[in-house]
Amino acid sequence: MGRITARTRVARITVGGATSRREDHLAVEEPLEIRVGGRRLAVTMRTPGHDVDLATGFLVSEGVVARGDQVAAAIHCGAPGENTYNVLDVGLAPGVPAPDASTERNFTVTSSCGVCGKASIDAVRTRSAYDVTGDDLRLDPALLVGFPDRMRAGQAVFERTGGLHAAALFDGRTGELLVLREDVGRHNAVDKVVGWAAREGLLPLRGMVLQVSGRASFELAQKATMAGIPVLAAVSAPSSLAVEHAAASGLTLVGFLRGDSMVVYAGEERIAAPSDAEAHATATVRAEAS
Amino acid sequence: MGRITARTRVARITVGGATSRREDHLAVEEPLEIRVGGRRLAVTMRTPGHDVDLATGFLVSEGVVARGDQVAAAIHCGAPGENTYNVLDVGLAPGVPAPDASTERNFTVTSSCGVCGKASIDAVRTRSAYDVTGDDLRLDPALLVGFPDRMRAGQAVFERTGGLHAAALFDGRTGELLVLREDVGRHNAVDKVVGWAAREGLLPLRGMVLQVSGRASFELAQKATMAGIPVLAAVSAPSSLAVEHAAASGLTLVGFLRGDSMVVYAGEERIAAPSDAEAHATATVRAEAS
Repeated sequence: MGRITARTRVARITVGGATSRREDHLAVEEPLEIRVGGRRLAVTMRTPGHDVDLATGFLVSEGVVARGDQVAAAIHCGAPGENTYNVLDVGLAPGVPAPDASTERNFTVTSSCGVCGKASIDAVRTRSAYDVTGDDLRLDPALLVGFPDRMRAGQAVFERTGGLHAAALFDGRTGELLVLREDVGRHNAVDKVVGWAAREGLLPLRGMVLQVSGRASFELAQKATMAGIPVLAAVSAPSSLAVEHAAASGLTLVGFLRGDSMVVYAGEERIAAPSDAEAHATATVRAEAS
Repeated sequence: MGRITARTRVARITVGGATSRREDHLAVEEPLEIRVGGRRLAVTMRTPGHDVDLATGFLVSEGVVARGDQVAAAIHCGAPGENTYNVLDVGLAPGVPAPDASTERNFTVTSSCGVCGKASIDAVRTRSAYDVTGDDLRLDPALLVGFPDRMRAGQAVFERTGGLHAAALFDGRTGELLVLREDVGRHNAVDKVVGWAAREGLLPLRGMVLQVSGRASFELAQKATMAGIPVLAAVSAPSSLAVEHAAASGLTLVGFLRGDSMVVYAGEERIAAPSDAEAHATATVRAEAS
């Protein structure tokens, strides 16, 4: 399936000190062409491995499929003499419409109002098979603050190269780590996580938390809602459009999740310590009784 | 030209502590559609501002233009009733061929061998107007190690939002900071820097250093060579394909530029303290004299 790390000779230079030469590990980056029924849909620069998950997750993000069983086959291929590990052809199940030609471009922005953030948000809602607004997950902040370190501990390749983004799926109630993926592209790491879950038959991902290593862009927030994930947690800052999309779609968006604290940008009602929830329940009972 | 930061209400939650609510600043992310002669070429999610630089730099990166004067006009536009700040139509100068249809897709990977890193590297070389192999810059590592902090000090928006990548252009001999740009997308920050330089008539950017805030991907290394920049310096790790491209094209690639040290992945001959250079010059003179 291709290498995840590569070796190279480097020179480490320290100002006023010695120059040392040694072998170093690099995170591998290679193009992957994703085809559907033989027709090219997209090319992404990714770290090889878990390519079928990546392609499946990409198709979920783009609204082409909503479940793993809508993908009937996926094979590495290529014309005679071509490199065959960087082309993946996906066959859709009978009855699943092939993506139209506009999918090849960035179809998150083709809306009647022209090109704007609002149109991007509306486009996601229009084609999403799932609605996270009804997800009644209540997430203990004491559980959530442990996710970044647990993800980092599982990043085998980052340890060697320092060069990979990560995405992980945690059960929001039990804290169980379901899957962790690394990639040179943060959107690929998320697609690999979502694609794995789709192939396991787990979509929509109710009650789950998507943890990412970096910032939260609109693209990542979109991928979360397209997979039915109610909470996106990032170690760094979200963008304005990620926050607007979260607020509009009922996604809980957490940023700056570091140490024992976090900033909640949308969907704060899902973040509640058990005592808060009990207090809330008690208050509700009282209110109902009065 | 659009806002660079937006305000939002957030909740800061600390485990076992109080929840505080306050106003926070976000880095703005909005789509930009780049058109050439009225035809859509690309859509990128970017931070508004310096859109003409962004589009110009993008066209340099893609090999559509090699100098700023090949862009005759650039206007924000849109159909009646559309948002007009997120569509930029570029008019090429007379005699400059319009990009062909394949440019609309990722044409860095359309090569005879199919899809592979080697093909990506060859494609950049084929369409590059500049060759950095002959750039005789000798860069003092003591000067170079100061660039990340100087760039960081100039990041006005990052200070407020924590959410932007940065790219900056430094003169490799004098250390002068020529331009600094911030964006939610690292590729956009680089395009804005290159586009500014193209419009200033500075291409090819001989003797310059492109400093970036994060990691060095193939895409960023490609943008450096397409603009004739001999040195790319990143605060974090490079990918395998960035290193391969640098080695194949004569680009000096520096990573992990932190504190007083760095790791040099390709083109180490350009990194030399003045004493080294003098020693080298002396050795050369001796060799020539003998």
